[in-house]
Amino acid sequence: MSSHHIIREKQEPALVIANGEACSWELLAQLLEWSPLVVVLDGAIKRVLELGIKVDVLLGDFDRDINLDEIRQAQYPIEFVHTPDQNKTDLEKAFDFLVERGHEAVNVVWATGRRADHTITNITNIVRVRDQIKVVLLDDHSRIFLLDYHYEKWYTAHTPLSLIPVGTVAGIRTEGLTYNLFNESLQIGYRTGSSNEAAQDGMVKISYESGDLLLMECWD
Amino acid sequence: MSSHHIIREKQEPALVIANGEACSWELLAQLLEWSPLVVVLDGAIKRVLELGIKVDVLLGDFDRDINLDEIRQAQYPIEFVHTPDQNKTDLEKAFDFLVERGHEAVNVVWATGRRADHTITNITNIVRVRDQIKVVLLDDHSRIFLLDYHYEKWYTAHTPLSLIPVGTVAGIRTEGLTYNLFNESLQIGYRTGSSNEAAQDGMVKISYESGDLLLMECWD
Repeated sequence: MSSHHIIREKQEPALVIANGEACSWELLAQLLEWSPLVVVLDGAIKRVLELGIKVDVLLGDFDRDINLDEIRQAQYPIEFVHTPDQNKTDLEKAFDFLVERGHEAVNVVWATGRRADHTITNITNIVRVRDQIKVVLLDDHSRIFLLDYHYEKWYTAHTPLSLIPVGTVAGIRTEGLTYNLFNESLQIGYRTGSSNEAAQDGMVKISYESGDLLLMECWD
Repeated sequence: MSSHHIIREKQEPALVIANGEACSWELLAQLLEWSPLVVVLDGAIKRVLELGIKVDVLLGDFDRDINLDEIRQAQYPIEFVHTPDQNKTDLEKAFDFLVERGHEAVNVVWATGRRADHTITNITNIVRVRDQIKVVLLDDHSRIFLLDYHYEKWYTAHTPLSLIPVGTVAGIRTEGLTYNLFNESLQIGYRTGSSNEAAQDGMVKISYESGDLLLMECWD
């Protein structure tokens, strides 16, 4: 048996189920299949229990109407992580928890939709852990992640690609997009690179010098 | 008849129906009742026609599968505003159009949900027209607007209020919140004022010195 068959458990992304709009069962099932650890945030546990999913960790304030005994009975073994810190969102606490446990990557679902304040905070706060864990947010219309300073990937022609700066991002250079950038800046609210696309079948290259640039692969 | 009974038509907010997730009929009907002008963005017209709403303006690229003759017949009189500029989103073009026509305020629905790139761009781009038109984005969980540099309003205790900086906002001072700010800065991605609330029944005061600060009144 060659060594590449040995998969270290924490190399596969963990899965966090947050408390926004539920995604399709199809997407959730696909992510669950490979996930070594499923973390549910606080109030979302009620909707998750209804889906009959096995959960590994429930994390949150537990300040709402949550019956831990009932959950333990339904999900044994399950770990409860009580995180009362008011200065961080539940999703940030989940990132901290996963980093501490040695996870290097995480997929996040149910982080968008419903309340706009949670949506924008969940999307933009992934920049804080940029050197600690690789985060991908997914919903039924979007795949969102922070770009490394040098990024390249093969896309089919006309794949929608939106470059969203979290704050100001400088020195952006792209190749392979329909609207390329040549050492330019983007600034949230004033100049974003939303609704760009892969120009043709082939490599798209994106690099930047400073700031935090999100890539959103979105579809209608 | 006293003069305050004379309402200038353009003092009531116009209504823009964008192309994201539809809101509840209840919210839409409430906004339609007072709106002097209804503007629909591009592809949304199909879903709007199904609702049997009278539309005044259809604005967009018209580059999709839209039959203008059919729409004219169903909605006569209706104005088509063709805006092929690739550097602006349809929502920004709608703001430009309304400013040009002398409107001072606009409510926007269907601007959030579905694609995350459209959601974040629609929410944050309202800062560009801060001196031209008063914009309020609404969906079933959120009411979003850019704060004037000095803002005060009466809220009932524990109303959720999120302060979301578009970029960096400096010199923020608040009164009447559970977590007040004292000449502090917020920075998108790194420090936001999400999930604050009115401390008690009474006035909430928020002021800031520079940048663009959104207020989100959200509910689950």
